[in-house]
Amino acid sequence: MAGDRFVGPAPLSVLVDALKRLPGVGAKSAQRMAYHLLQHDPHGARMLGQALGDAVDRLRHCARCNTFTESEICETCASPRRDASLLCVVETPADQNMIEASHSYNGLYFVLMGRLSPLEGVGPNEIGFDRLLARATDGQVREVILATNFTTEGETTAHYLAELLRAQGLGVTRLARGVPAGSELEYVDAGTIAWALMDRRAP
Amino acid sequence: MAGDRFVGPAPLSVLVDALKRLPGVGAKSAQRMAYHLLQHDPHGARMLGQALGDAVDRLRHCARCNTFTESEICETCASPRRDASLLCVVETPADQNMIEASHSYNGLYFVLMGRLSPLEGVGPNEIGFDRLLARATDGQVREVILATNFTTEGETTAHYLAELLRAQGLGVTRLARGVPAGSELEYVDAGTIAWALMDRRAP
Repeated sequence: MAGDRFVGPAPLSVLVDALKRLPGVGAKSAQRMAYHLLQHDPHGARMLGQALGDAVDRLRHCARCNTFTESEICETCASPRRDASLLCVVETPADQNMIEASHSYNGLYFVLMGRLSPLEGVGPNEIGFDRLLARATDGQVREVILATNFTTEGETTAHYLAELLRAQGLGVTRLARGVPAGSELEYVDAGTIAWALMDRRAP
Repeated sequence: MAGDRFVGPAPLSVLVDALKRLPGVGAKSAQRMAYHLLQHDPHGARMLGQALGDAVDRLRHCARCNTFTESEICETCASPRRDASLLCVVETPADQNMIEASHSYNGLYFVLMGRLSPLEGVGPNEIGFDRLLARATDGQVREVILATNFTTEGETTAHYLAELLRAQGLGVTRLARGVPAGSELEYVDAGTIAWALMDRRAP
């Protein structure tokens, strides 16, 4: 639309363009964000500007699990209380946080920072499966738990990794599929019910 | 949710918190944005950081119309080709851009940078109607066109301003309400049809 073309002073249009680089932020949202920050939260704008620079300057990838960290090795990987025979593979640090929040896993992680997506041109080389392979075959890992998402891309990634890792003689498991906790069957989608039936177990 | 509580190195959690200050960005989106920038667009992160600082440092409000500008008076207000007898009142610079994009207005503007919203504690003092009043009564303005949004808050603002400005002897008009261009009646809401009937005109 014509109205989406931004007209305004240079520092404002540069800011709107920069905000459009954020995922999920289009022309209209970027404008709204810029106006909001300038009008109601200039302090927040400065804080965000500082935080962006700091994060890019100070964070790097953990040499063992690939998550973001300020050190060579992240806190989780450095912890002696973690079970080094278990390695859980997730797509993002957000997924890792969710698993930690379940308080039911005490092993280590490998964070892919992505997933296979042939349609978007993301293959095994782009994800860096060689680093995962090196990590998983360190002699300590016995079981790799694939906890990629249950989307098409996540499932594709899990299938690919399962073959790759099994070929190395590693035990490979996948998070259970089924009915979510607290949900009513009436509102669960048919595909999930089909999975839950297939994978049914003794109560 | 427990998983919304962010766990990670300090520069990352500071960045996630700062991103949450953006309007419409919650905990999950902020995390996704942070991971995206760090993993796929560190250059974009630096650009955004720089743009935020620049915008806050270099932009101020136009002394005449209240929009964002680098100068004392914005380009529109400074233009000799504009009709100084017309003053169009809008809520945001984005609204002003939309009116400019229609290529059917040649007067000047006043940008409220907000609207009355009693429920959110935004009254006439918070919006600074005194500045609008001073601007509209400069002796040159003959007609004030109220172009606030057609939402509850925008309509409230327009009603309030209409009384305020008419009391000064100014001509006050409001953007026409009616059926949007290119739309089929079948898909237009009943309230709009009711307006269009009330305000019907010779074809």
